[in-house]
Amino acid sequence: MITRLSTLFLRTLREDPADAEVPSHRLLVRAGYIRRAAPGIYTWLPLGYRVLRNVERIVREEMDAIGAQEVHFPALLPREPYEATGRWTEYGDNLFRLQDRKQGDYLLGPTHEEMFTLLVKDMYSSYKGLPLSLYQIQTKYRDEARPRAGILRGREFVMKDSYSFDLDDAGLAASYQRHRDAYIRIFDRLGLRYVIVAAMSGAMGGSASEEFLADCVNGEDTYVRSPAGYAANVEAVTTPVPAAIPLTDQPAAHVEDTPDTPTIDTLVAHSNAAHPRADRPWTGADTLKNVLVMLRNPDGSREPLAIGLPGDREVDLKRLEAQVAPAEVEPFDEVEFAKHPSLVKGYIGPGVLGSTGTSGIRYLLDPRVVPGTAWITGANEPGRHVYDLVAGRDFTADGTVEAAEVREGDQSPDGSGPLTLARGIEMGHIFQLGRKYAQALGLQVLDENGKLVTVTMGSYGIGVSRAVAAIAESSYDDKGLIWPREVAPADVHVVIAGKSAEIVDTAELIAAGLDAAGITVMLDDRNASVGVKFADAELIGVPTICVVGRGVANGVVEVRDRASGDKTEVPLVEVVEQLRARVRG
Amino acid sequence: MITRLSTLFLRTLREDPADAEVPSHRLLVRAGYIRRAAPGIYTWLPLGYRVLRNVERIVREEMDAIGAQEVHFPALLPREPYEATGRWTEYGDNLFRLQDRKQGDYLLGPTHEEMFTLLVKDMYSSYKGLPLSLYQIQTKYRDEARPRAGILRGREFVMKDSYSFDLDDAGLAASYQRHRDAYIRIFDRLGLRYVIVAAMSGAMGGSASEEFLADCVNGEDTYVRSPAGYAANVEAVTTPVPAAIPLTDQPAAHVEDTPDTPTIDTLVAHSNAAHPRADRPWTGADTLKNVLVMLRNPDGSREPLAIGLPGDREVDLKRLEAQVAPAEVEPFDEVEFAKHPSLVKGYIGPGVLGSTGTSGIRYLLDPRVVPGTAWITGANEPGRHVYDLVAGRDFTADGTVEAAEVREGDQSPDGSGPLTLARGIEMGHIFQLGRKYAQALGLQVLDENGKLVTVTMGSYGIGVSRAVAAIAESSYDDKGLIWPREVAPADVHVVIAGKSAEIVDTAELIAAGLDAAGITVMLDDRNASVGVKFADAELIGVPTICVVGRGVANGVVEVRDRASGDKTEVPLVEVVEQLRARVRG
Repeated sequence: MITRLSTLFLRTLREDPADAEVPSHRLLVRAGYIRRAAPGIYTWLPLGYRVLRNVERIVREEMDAIGAQEVHFPALLPREPYEATGRWTEYGDNLFRLQDRKQGDYLLGPTHEEMFTLLVKDMYSSYKGLPLSLYQIQTKYRDEARPRAGILRGREFVMKDSYSFDLDDAGLAASYQRHRDAYIRIFDRLGLRYVIVAAMSGAMGGSASEEFLADCVNGEDTYVRSPAGYAANVEAVTTPVPAAIPLTDQPAAHVEDTPDTPTIDTLVAHSNAAHPRADRPWTGADTLKNVLVMLRNPDGSREPLAIGLPGDREVDLKRLEAQVAPAEVEPFDEVEFAKHPSLVKGYIGPGVLGSTGTSGIRYLLDPRVVPGTAWITGANEPGRHVYDLVAGRDFTADGTVEAAEVREGDQSPDGSGPLTLARGIEMGHIFQLGRKYAQALGLQVLDENGKLVTVTMGSYGIGVSRAVAAIAESSYDDKGLIWPREVAPADVHVVIAGKSAEIVDTAELIAAGLDAAGITVMLDDRNASVGVKFADAELIGVPTICVVGRGVANGVVEVRDRASGDKTEVPLVEVVEQLRARVRG
Repeated sequence: MITRLSTLFLRTLREDPADAEVPSHRLLVRAGYIRRAAPGIYTWLPLGYRVLRNVERIVREEMDAIGAQEVHFPALLPREPYEATGRWTEYGDNLFRLQDRKQGDYLLGPTHEEMFTLLVKDMYSSYKGLPLSLYQIQTKYRDEARPRAGILRGREFVMKDSYSFDLDDAGLAASYQRHRDAYIRIFDRLGLRYVIVAAMSGAMGGSASEEFLADCVNGEDTYVRSPAGYAANVEAVTTPVPAAIPLTDQPAAHVEDTPDTPTIDTLVAHSNAAHPRADRPWTGADTLKNVLVMLRNPDGSREPLAIGLPGDREVDLKRLEAQVAPAEVEPFDEVEFAKHPSLVKGYIGPGVLGSTGTSGIRYLLDPRVVPGTAWITGANEPGRHVYDLVAGRDFTADGTVEAAEVREGDQSPDGSGPLTLARGIEMGHIFQLGRKYAQALGLQVLDENGKLVTVTMGSYGIGVSRAVAAIAESSYDDKGLIWPREVAPADVHVVIAGKSAEIVDTAELIAAGLDAAGITVMLDDRNASVGVKFADAELIGVPTICVVGRGVANGVVEVRDRASGDKTEVPLVEVVEQLRARVRG
């Protein structure tokens, strides 16, 4: 196929779009791949749609290769199944809801666990149909609070979602592994640098769960790695719990005047000045900070929550939200403080917290606060703190919570040493859902002995449209996009660099030769300057550029590698064959 | 590719689904192609999705071949562009509307004229980009009042819609012709019997318009043909207008007592008894019936309308609605009659109708009611009619309307003789939209002289998911579906008709040989009876069935043609080659 730039529906832009925050967004708009239609909603232009379809093809081939079968569900879905699993409510504002002309409630599908479960229930009643894996590549909808970064986090997007159905845990584990292997092949073919990390299952329910993150400084997800290879989404990192300290022989707690110490910094400075410790100075890590937040449940109800954590760490909202999902976290504002007179701002201590405390507010501790650890913390009076308050002796809480920020250098849960932090884009997510949906919707089959058993499921997603952005985000330079070969909108970009008949005819011949060899060609036959053509070729980012210019007089053209910038002079008689070899690799 | 029925996600049904009205719906559900998810909303199962994708491929290839460029718009669209063209309101209840979390108004796209117009406006400002044709294959939404017949008229469906952009009428005519030619190739490849008919442009605006109707007794559209080849959707048929009759020398109108004649039949009987005509008896065609309806505009407002037509014809609601679109037609009920005391039910005459009549109700006449024609019609008094009331002398109206039923045997507008009627399924619709959308949304480009000109557009649709149903509807027998080769879910259906190792191994070898030859195979390797396998093969409808059974002992298999039922014994050594020849044709 030859695509002529003279007729291609394309207008490249020299200026960055005003709303573009990240390189992929900037470049995909500038190079004429996508165009914004509404906030978080994009139109695919001809070049962009080709790349999207290339990604779809790769995903489809690898899903077919593991025996997953393609189906296609509607995007407009009835309320009832989502009501049965609670997600009609749990999704909160993220769900697009609507009514039809008969006031029936519908939603735009954000993910299809319910529908797949019901379909299999409808079709199968025996173990003989299992194991079964079904998938679809489909447009999905989420009413993101903050759609951002172009198609990286849109409100209408294309996903591949698949679901496995097995009789038992071993079957689920095998289905999960097959998907995991397929995902590795897919992301390899997409040319992405990625890491597989342990993940939270979030609103999806279920147990084992991993994410495929594309390595990317602009990614929204932070993940950690240990020296021994442990990797986890920061939401899923578990804190190594220190050994408890015997409660005997610990000094008694004592309240001290600590005027004007409402912050950890002022408290530490005051403590070192007024109550110095013999062996080493006090630090924030010796203090116990109690942070209050409000949880908003999907049904709109709110409840307060107190989190006790070492004073040198902040609460990480994403980690906290992953723990309390489907609830969302909101600030604990002055109005709330007014409702709880026992809370003295800046001086809150465990005494008033927890189900047994004066406030009655649920109180969860960072896992580091093990029994026997002694803390400086608020005395619940203005200007006063308590010292040597020992966990398990002087206070308890309602449980623990993984909500403290994870830091570069923190000890890894696998014991192999300090964690390093990096950022990535969530490209795929694989879950062992287990029986949650099958139970909620009654998916049972008869096993070999004629006994009804509840099916166990896996759920596996890939962000197909997001992959286009992630690839762009991980492969560009100051001149433009650089597509990996399998997803590029064309194999070779032929630039007609001159107006002479000799140059034009030679370029046309090369394009025709490549086309005959099954190579897709972008042919810049526009009436534009060579400078404009070079700039557009580099912006568009086809991996191989063939410049047909004055060299034709000497029987040569120039072949450029977009990624490396390498330029080679190639004799005309060899150019089609050499390009074919490059493309077919 | 080999699809094994032992693992295919399939359950064929022996019973017809209770809600299935037409053969395609019945068979597509029974054979495991589609499954209902909600009223008018269907899930594509593996076999169905293959057929759908085959249709998509054919459409894509032919659109690409005319130089149309594929893009992809969102389905979730902002209100504003549809507000600008009036369609936000005009679509009435047929539009799915919703709000996002910020109370922004959105719709689910029923068709994308606005978005394409705005995109081209956004990208291009010069004539140099024209002519331009863009298309997409996309999921669309219409909240049909009566979703019916499975995927034949669904509320979520797949359409190919394309749009042409030209500088002038000649360009538009050329783009229209290119699309028309592509549509002919597409419907030929889909194996459909179809007819191209003149059509109304309906809510789309614009002038020239044709429909591609698949010939089908269960079709929702009625069309007519003339002996000379004129063909039109019944909504678009124009009535040949008789010559006006001189008003001179006509007898004067006279009111007569016609007791108990509120219907045409009673009126005709009374007239022949009490006021016989010398040369021939009175018939319904001599009477002028005045029918009242209410028009409901998209904004919810209502207005009455009176239609005067020969008493032997009924008002055809679909023809009337096509004329008054986007208004819908509702009955004129007792409450309305009570509001207009001048209307005497059963005896309504022109005197009280029209903008100058007592009632003030708008009055439109059938085109047959030309000046000089004399009628028996209501005298606006109970039990009285007026005779020899002459149009143009004794009454006038506010205009004419094509709302009378079209009958088999009516004279064709091309003058070639009587019309014949048939039914079809609307598969494609091509329009010369003209400048309506470009004007409403300000799509102008600079022409060669630097003058701003408004672009003229065409709009071209194909019902892609509907095509699957239409093909099924036009190609089946009492045993099941019969797919045309290009859209079939597989090329060859191999039935393992026996349990011996010899039979099983031979079947596997044939399947592998076909697969190696690039032929897609459905292999029935299930542990089921031969009878079940035959029944399913015929129900599923792959065009060629290869039965591997006892004949293997004699070195032969049976090859069946699904459509004709012809059976041939083929030597094992030739079977792959013979099947390849059949498939590749």
